[in-house]
Amino acid sequence: MIQASICTIGDEILIGQIVDTNSSRIASALEGIGVRVTRMVSFGDDRKEILECLEEELRRNDIVVVTGGLGPTKDDITKSALAELSGSRMYVENSGQLGIIENILKSRGLDMLDINRAQAYVPDTCSVIPNRLGTAPVMVFRFGEEQYGHQCSLYSLPGVPFEAEGAIPDVLDDIKGHFRLEDIYHRSIMTFGIAESALSKKIADWEDSLPRDMHLAYLPNPLTGVRLRLSVYGGTREEESARIDRKFAELRQILGEAVYAGYDTTLQEVIGRMLKEKGRTVSAAESCTGGMISQLLASVPGASEYYLGSVTSYANSVKENVLGVPAETIEKNGAVSSECVARMAEGVRKLTGSDYSIATSGIAGPGGGSEDKPVGLVWVGVSSASGTRTCKFMFKGDRIRNMERFASSALNVLREKIMSDSNEEL
Amino acid sequence: MIQASICTIGDEILIGQIVDTNSSRIASALEGIGVRVTRMVSFGDDRKEILECLEEELRRNDIVVVTGGLGPTKDDITKSALAELSGSRMYVENSGQLGIIENILKSRGLDMLDINRAQAYVPDTCSVIPNRLGTAPVMVFRFGEEQYGHQCSLYSLPGVPFEAEGAIPDVLDDIKGHFRLEDIYHRSIMTFGIAESALSKKIADWEDSLPRDMHLAYLPNPLTGVRLRLSVYGGTREEESARIDRKFAELRQILGEAVYAGYDTTLQEVIGRMLKEKGRTVSAAESCTGGMISQLLASVPGASEYYLGSVTSYANSVKENVLGVPAETIEKNGAVSSECVARMAEGVRKLTGSDYSIATSGIAGPGGGSEDKPVGLVWVGVSSASGTRTCKFMFKGDRIRNMERFASSALNVLREKIMSDSNEEL
Repeated sequence: MIQASICTIGDEILIGQIVDTNSSRIASALEGIGVRVTRMVSFGDDRKEILECLEEELRRNDIVVVTGGLGPTKDDITKSALAELSGSRMYVENSGQLGIIENILKSRGLDMLDINRAQAYVPDTCSVIPNRLGTAPVMVFRFGEEQYGHQCSLYSLPGVPFEAEGAIPDVLDDIKGHFRLEDIYHRSIMTFGIAESALSKKIADWEDSLPRDMHLAYLPNPLTGVRLRLSVYGGTREEESARIDRKFAELRQILGEAVYAGYDTTLQEVIGRMLKEKGRTVSAAESCTGGMISQLLASVPGASEYYLGSVTSYANSVKENVLGVPAETIEKNGAVSSECVARMAEGVRKLTGSDYSIATSGIAGPGGGSEDKPVGLVWVGVSSASGTRTCKFMFKGDRIRNMERFASSALNVLREKIMSDSNEEL
Repeated sequence: MIQASICTIGDEILIGQIVDTNSSRIASALEGIGVRVTRMVSFGDDRKEILECLEEELRRNDIVVVTGGLGPTKDDITKSALAELSGSRMYVENSGQLGIIENILKSRGLDMLDINRAQAYVPDTCSVIPNRLGTAPVMVFRFGEEQYGHQCSLYSLPGVPFEAEGAIPDVLDDIKGHFRLEDIYHRSIMTFGIAESALSKKIADWEDSLPRDMHLAYLPNPLTGVRLRLSVYGGTREEESARIDRKFAELRQILGEAVYAGYDTTLQEVIGRMLKEKGRTVSAAESCTGGMISQLLASVPGASEYYLGSVTSYANSVKENVLGVPAETIEKNGAVSSECVARMAEGVRKLTGSDYSIATSGIAGPGGGSEDKPVGLVWVGVSSASGTRTCKFMFKGDRIRNMERFASSALNVLREKIMSDSNEEL
């Protein structure tokens, strides 16, 4: 099986100032074409370290994908290290990339600087895949058996996540042209509302019944719940797909409503698909989630077909004056209460004219909790023509994590509401 | 200088299903106490690979911090690999962690399962730092010169980001007690609105004037602009701080208004601080940013002091009926126009009674653009008692990246408006 290593170069990663998202995207793409990623390594902007680490990864792997260290500024030395690694004696101008750089600068109304032009110069030992989204081209270096004991390729990609992602399809094409690939097949089933350990107990017998070549992984995420992923190496895709279908059908029997999709997706995508099918619309009234539910709903391409909008009523005055929550409701029950989220959900549905609505009010922390209503408490309300439903949840996390759990739990209540309305209609 | 490696164990990282955020947080914490992170490595849930990789990292480093692979489910084998690595012959119950597990399960109304109890059992070769936020304890293994040629410590942390972060303070205390640490000193200056390459040209002479022991890094981020970070190794903190202050003062002279803070922060935090100082409030009216501006404003702890709320007017009907944008304004100019964002900003300010407001309308893509108004175009409006100002920006990115650029550019316009209002008041 073809093996790859993904390397990230940059002090900014090592001191923790930025999170490396490139490696994850590249890994996902490589897995998709049947390349097994064995390691990911990050190391610093230091020539000796770059050379040592890359040589080690080239010895261990068929493919090494490197990101970062190609910026126009002075702290980047990857290119000259790659020139040394490949025995290059001179840089050559790549006219394709130079043209792209000219166009990018022109569209931004900027002059061509020397440091921009320098990005179109590459070691004469590499071939170039032009980067249409940025100024640094993708460089491809090939090494033979005499160097690392086997044929291997090194791809150097820009570190800017948007540009790295844009370069992936061309890199995959190049890999397909140079290596004989085997299939890896992954499929996911999405669950929400059952903790990882409870889930594991619930499906223990099923898990024990899995054939040896199927590997199960639990992938918990506060926004999407626990994703269960089955992986199979080798075989034909059609065959594996049918086998996984059978195992997933058993799993749905065991887990029931906790399964919200049999493929890799999100609650907001599933909600969007249901609303589009039924020609219904949704709106949101948020307090503690601060716009996160709106952002999640709006992040789905095409959301404008069913998502009308939202009110973030952070202040009680906005709950009262914009959403029409009676002042007495808040006085009597507090803003974090079943009554308040019910009125918020009904208010935003009326205000926007949507078929469905979703509302949250809770305490994300770190401050603001009481014994009665501690940090981590959230009330969720959903409303439609069939009525308004509220429920509460309790979580333990920091501010952002609580917001995420609040938002995803609310989306799941909305999903259940849409499904139960559909069942009643039948 | 004490050196560390951060290792992440888990197939889910290698196949790109989740992004590793733990390494970044741990790195940032280690740097803060003067430990130099030399490498980050991710590898799979495979006993042989775990052992080989950890041995290599222990040979190269004084400290190895491992996250992941400690979940209660069957795909995690880190603990038994660590037992083998450290020559453990038996597991022992850790009563401290067992008590925590009992409490966590009780607070969630769950029964103690065998797989939960198993998490309180650790190899007899390690000491334990209890994990108050989850079920898997932190395990500390010490190795001597006879094993790796030097004294070294391995810390095994849970993979759940929230729990890993919670364990960091105790791990740092343990490191301080076991190693002689030197200082690393980092300071950042935040800029917005100048691209990395233009910035680099503008400050080239200043950069050349930096003393040899100061290292500059450019850290671009769509939500916060380009962060410029100066690092100095060694010396005393007071001395280095004064030296960096002088260099930053020169930088502010060169960059002027593009600098929005002399420390590591965000636009929304700076805006929050200014509003709190002046006792003013803000609200938002969003379209294409879908709630992101609201979420950014609300993400700052204490935001309820100045952030009243927002309307996400995704549908034009909401722009008209909730924000009071005249239908003619949209008919004549379109929703993506100076006129529309001006009315949106004024509308939400009136609706919520806030002193300031911020509005966006644009085309995030991937669909929906025209020749006149292409994907990537956004109009921003800000309004206060001193008047309403609009401006437009053009970006090239995917949907999420465009939303991020739209949101941060809008926040920057708001920041400038608050500053210019302050100047007029003086």
